[in-house]
Amino acid sequence: MEVFIEPIGRLINEFSKLPGVGKKTAQRYAYRIVRMPEDEASAFAEAILNAKKKVRYCKICGNYSVADVCDVCATRDKSVICVVKEPKDVVAFEKLHEFKGVYHVLHGVLSPMEGIGPNDIRIKELLARLDGVKEVIMATNPDVEGQATAMYIAKLIKPLEIKVTRLANGVPIGSELEYADEVTLSRALSERKEL
Amino acid sequence: MEVFIEPIGRLINEFSKLPGVGKKTAQRYAYRIVRMPEDEASAFAEAILNAKKKVRYCKICGNYSVADVCDVCATRDKSVICVVKEPKDVVAFEKLHEFKGVYHVLHGVLSPMEGIGPNDIRIKELLARLDGVKEVIMATNPDVEGQATAMYIAKLIKPLEIKVTRLANGVPIGSELEYADEVTLSRALSERKEL
Repeated sequence: MEVFIEPIGRLINEFSKLPGVGKKTAQRYAYRIVRMPEDEASAFAEAILNAKKKVRYCKICGNYSVADVCDVCATRDKSVICVVKEPKDVVAFEKLHEFKGVYHVLHGVLSPMEGIGPNDIRIKELLARLDGVKEVIMATNPDVEGQATAMYIAKLIKPLEIKVTRLANGVPIGSELEYADEVTLSRALSERKEL
Repeated sequence: MEVFIEPIGRLINEFSKLPGVGKKTAQRYAYRIVRMPEDEASAFAEAILNAKKKVRYCKICGNYSVADVCDVCATRDKSVICVVKEPKDVVAFEKLHEFKGVYHVLHGVLSPMEGIGPNDIRIKELLARLDGVKEVIMATNPDVEGQATAMYIAKLIKPLEIKVTRLANGVPIGSELEYADEVTLSRALSERKEL
């Protein structure tokens, strides 16, 4: 005899596909669904289908969008482009409500180990939209692959006389120096600023 | 400008309704859905609708079931009933593959604080199925409300000359005595067994 009846087992299986969700958590989620009122569960299922149906990529920046061109590309200052790895990085910046420029989502970073080369991420598309651009901010993750990707792209863009910048590295605000890793602390020291 | 486009924001909102899921986790889940192949997302939505449509309560034990009477009630030894608070407690026992009797799901425990009295949980239904029963195992949670509920039900059943038992209390196997709470340790001591 199965521990779970089929419809619940199947739902647990689906929830297990979400990132970081194990069997136990998936089980809690499934039971929550079963206890939901009918219309709430329908709304949930509908939201999944709706997201799959309506979300596409902005044909300019590559971020998720409901229209051919996303709101950011349609309305903001196109002379500054912030280059990120993934759509969720755009969210991180947008939450600041500070950046007034536009984005370019690479959908990945260079990774020789995983066989991801310059043609596998949206570099060509970036080079194609540099007309009139004054600054390109490389905002890939501050890890080995992110930095290598930033360097690679910077090398392509600099000859075009466009300013290329990267995010500052250093110790995070509110952290304790004692726990800072050596590479970060060393970078924070060498890039120290005058007060 | 919204940080999330509408279909993604709506999906994040739905995922936030799951137990223990905050905005950040809901966002990760939503992005996973958006990145899923179309058919996988459809299967996910379908599993939610399917669970809501097919899962009902077993009319005997009150556990989730696809039929009027669940597999456990239909096939197992009805002379021993294990009384639990919720359907997920049944899952915990079924995983042991040890218990051969049937269950009775109360769908709650007595809680004067929350205004839950004997008529709000499935006590009447339990009393109605005691014909031929030899033992009732009270397996509500070992907390104040669970124990009070067990005592209350035991008092109703004992006059019928049916054996009523409860789960053993004591220090969990594999735990360290140093970290056992006082009530548990005291119980383990007073209920010590001869070797």
